[in-house]
Amino acid sequence: MTEPLRLGIAGLGTVGVGVVKIIRQKANLLAMRTGRPIEIVAVSARSQGKDRGVALSDYAWEDDPVALAKRDDIDVFVELMGGHEGAAKDATEAALATGKDVVTANKALLAHYGHELALMAEDAGHVIRFEAAVAGGIPVIKSLTEGLAGNDISRVMGVMNGTCNYILTRMQSSGLPYEDVFAEADKLGYLEADPNLDVGGIDAGHKLALLASIAFGSKVNFDAVALEGIGQISIQDITLAAGMGYRIKLLGVAQKTGRGLEQRMTPCLVPEHSPLGQLEGGTNMVVLEGDNVGQIVLRGAGAGEGPTASAVLSDILDIARGTRISTFGQPAKTLDTIPAAQSQTPAPFYIRLSLIDKPGSLAKVAAALGNSGVSIDRLRQQDHSGDHAQVIIVTHKTARQELDIALSEIENTGVVSGTPVALRIETV
Amino acid sequence: MTEPLRLGIAGLGTVGVGVVKIIRQKANLLAMRTGRPIEIVAVSARSQGKDRGVALSDYAWEDDPVALAKRDDIDVFVELMGGHEGAAKDATEAALATGKDVVTANKALLAHYGHELALMAEDAGHVIRFEAAVAGGIPVIKSLTEGLAGNDISRVMGVMNGTCNYILTRMQSSGLPYEDVFAEADKLGYLEADPNLDVGGIDAGHKLALLASIAFGSKVNFDAVALEGIGQISIQDITLAAGMGYRIKLLGVAQKTGRGLEQRMTPCLVPEHSPLGQLEGGTNMVVLEGDNVGQIVLRGAGAGEGPTASAVLSDILDIARGTRISTFGQPAKTLDTIPAAQSQTPAPFYIRLSLIDKPGSLAKVAAALGNSGVSIDRLRQQDHSGDHAQVIIVTHKTARQELDIALSEIENTGVVSGTPVALRIETV
Repeated sequence: MTEPLRLGIAGLGTVGVGVVKIIRQKANLLAMRTGRPIEIVAVSARSQGKDRGVALSDYAWEDDPVALAKRDDIDVFVELMGGHEGAAKDATEAALATGKDVVTANKALLAHYGHELALMAEDAGHVIRFEAAVAGGIPVIKSLTEGLAGNDISRVMGVMNGTCNYILTRMQSSGLPYEDVFAEADKLGYLEADPNLDVGGIDAGHKLALLASIAFGSKVNFDAVALEGIGQISIQDITLAAGMGYRIKLLGVAQKTGRGLEQRMTPCLVPEHSPLGQLEGGTNMVVLEGDNVGQIVLRGAGAGEGPTASAVLSDILDIARGTRISTFGQPAKTLDTIPAAQSQTPAPFYIRLSLIDKPGSLAKVAAALGNSGVSIDRLRQQDHSGDHAQVIIVTHKTARQELDIALSEIENTGVVSGTPVALRIETV
Repeated sequence: MTEPLRLGIAGLGTVGVGVVKIIRQKANLLAMRTGRPIEIVAVSARSQGKDRGVALSDYAWEDDPVALAKRDDIDVFVELMGGHEGAAKDATEAALATGKDVVTANKALLAHYGHELALMAEDAGHVIRFEAAVAGGIPVIKSLTEGLAGNDISRVMGVMNGTCNYILTRMQSSGLPYEDVFAEADKLGYLEADPNLDVGGIDAGHKLALLASIAFGSKVNFDAVALEGIGQISIQDITLAAGMGYRIKLLGVAQKTGRGLEQRMTPCLVPEHSPLGQLEGGTNMVVLEGDNVGQIVLRGAGAGEGPTASAVLSDILDIARGTRISTFGQPAKTLDTIPAAQSQTPAPFYIRLSLIDKPGSLAKVAAALGNSGVSIDRLRQQDHSGDHAQVIIVTHKTARQELDIALSEIENTGVVSGTPVALRIETV
């Protein structure tokens, strides 16, 4: 094949502009690597007049991304608009309906409609590629779908929202509370327009659902992801966890167990010396575990113009080279409906509670834990302030349900103030 | 495509047996992922009678791997024999000459003949894939060739010989000298039949030469790799480097500079808190740096049945899916001959010397460094034993040539005993 691969690019924000720049700057290199020229035919964005720092006059302009998607002079529709409803979805469907392959960075769209879109694409013999949707520049979709295709995957984990990891590591290094660091991140432009997409774990949850689908051959099921954001993480817990050799991360974990498919995106403790524990700032990390390959750790920038555009290019160049792979690594019609696990894999937990300092208080806490079969690995009582003491407990492995029963019994004893904090310690 | 992909596998050592096992155990999964059955047609190894723990009676047996490669009932020749001359080379050439694709784990063969073999394959429209040749189960060839194809690569680094990393980290944790840990590794079966392939850096050098070819679009040039093994690394240097916040690694670095293509596989110091510095035991790590993607770090098992077989499977399944990519990421006939850099990129260096303890000694050392334009960042004098003192110097960035002039001047002053140790500190 030496005829050009013709692109229509919808969305000219940071990533879209990055993709245009690379294709302009590296035309020869990309053609050499793929054997054919990569050609932008048409683009679409909200405002044609805006100066984006890159020349667009060589390309046809479409105000309507759906019209762009339907053009018969493009081979690939590159969707970089974002949003899981409306224009992005309409244009993607229009592209597939009119015979185009699709490259997208849109994790929200795929987390909600990935299965339907994959069926639609595959029925028509087209591909949807989405390397840029998960962990920015890290080739994680490729590693999982292709590099580890000879494995049964046992677990996928990841820190996949750079903003949350920035906030958590900055809290630890500065000793500042969540609210202050959140405001800092906002000022630096690190937060989505709706910050809950970041700090609520939704964005990272979308990514986890996509990885889980590939890893376990299951239909994408974002609704089944147990989501918990970082808004409740106190500087106190970060400091106390550090004192016991842990870091707190917004950690995604997907694993298939006898109980079904478990998907969690929640704040967890990980050992400070593990690769995940050592991850600082906005960097992302994904851990893939397969029965043959063992543990593979991938680390890199999870966002930003260059890294995300690099991932988009990877998909475009694969298509130029003739690589055709099912959206989720096997034909969409063969994907299973794996029920969500009704309970989570047992794990040790970190518990912090504010104990009313009177004789017998600690005994009541210990008894409540024992009654639910939760056994204590380590316990520290410290920080007497007034008539309260901080008690930090690391449990042995326990089911979350048993722990919850114990915690509610502890609250009922009247020996603690407020609600105890309980965070899972993930084995990594 | 639903007709089976038919394999001939030559070499039934650890990796070959691992590949056979996976294909037998995961037949349905692999067929689902690729859309076609993966079928072993024939195998070849030295001894037919040997019990390898896996049933081989379903497959035709060939004593001669060349005869296997030429069979007209196979699509892919899987070369897992090893060795860069003789049977492996003959059989690979026979496979290409008779219309087969090739999957190989043979870094030595490709480091020596990769360019010729790639030309031969591409002239005939066939592919050679070699994910298993570099860093075991880590999908690094795929990440570099495909995942980062939209980047100009600026540098590739890696710890790619698990045995060397085992020896170095075990020396540090145990305080034992090289000879003792080498003997330990030998007893554990970690060493190649010719241990110099491991500890001399040759095996890792082969891998680096392959990565450099892909990264910089250059013909594989193993002869240009500056090779230095770990046999000269003393426990003293490991301990002293650790005291200054560094770890010693057998580190491969390839980068293209104004001076040409620089390829080094040498013991280097890296910061203890960097991902490379934290790599323990037999694990491998590869760092890829691109102009758009920034720094990507990949970590995983670099050897062993499961991980290596996983990489071989990745290549086989790509071929089954119809993926066709030039051996080194662009057509072999477009690969450049990039001259080897005549000098290395300047870097800080760690120097250890044994100073004769008399007035003016240190001044002479400092003067010799200054005369060559080598400036001192940190200096420690310690460990007086008899009439000698250990002097440890960390320099500012300097060219290796200037440092060598300074070191020879220092030796000529007569104020040091023995030859000073000088190790590069790589910026990671």
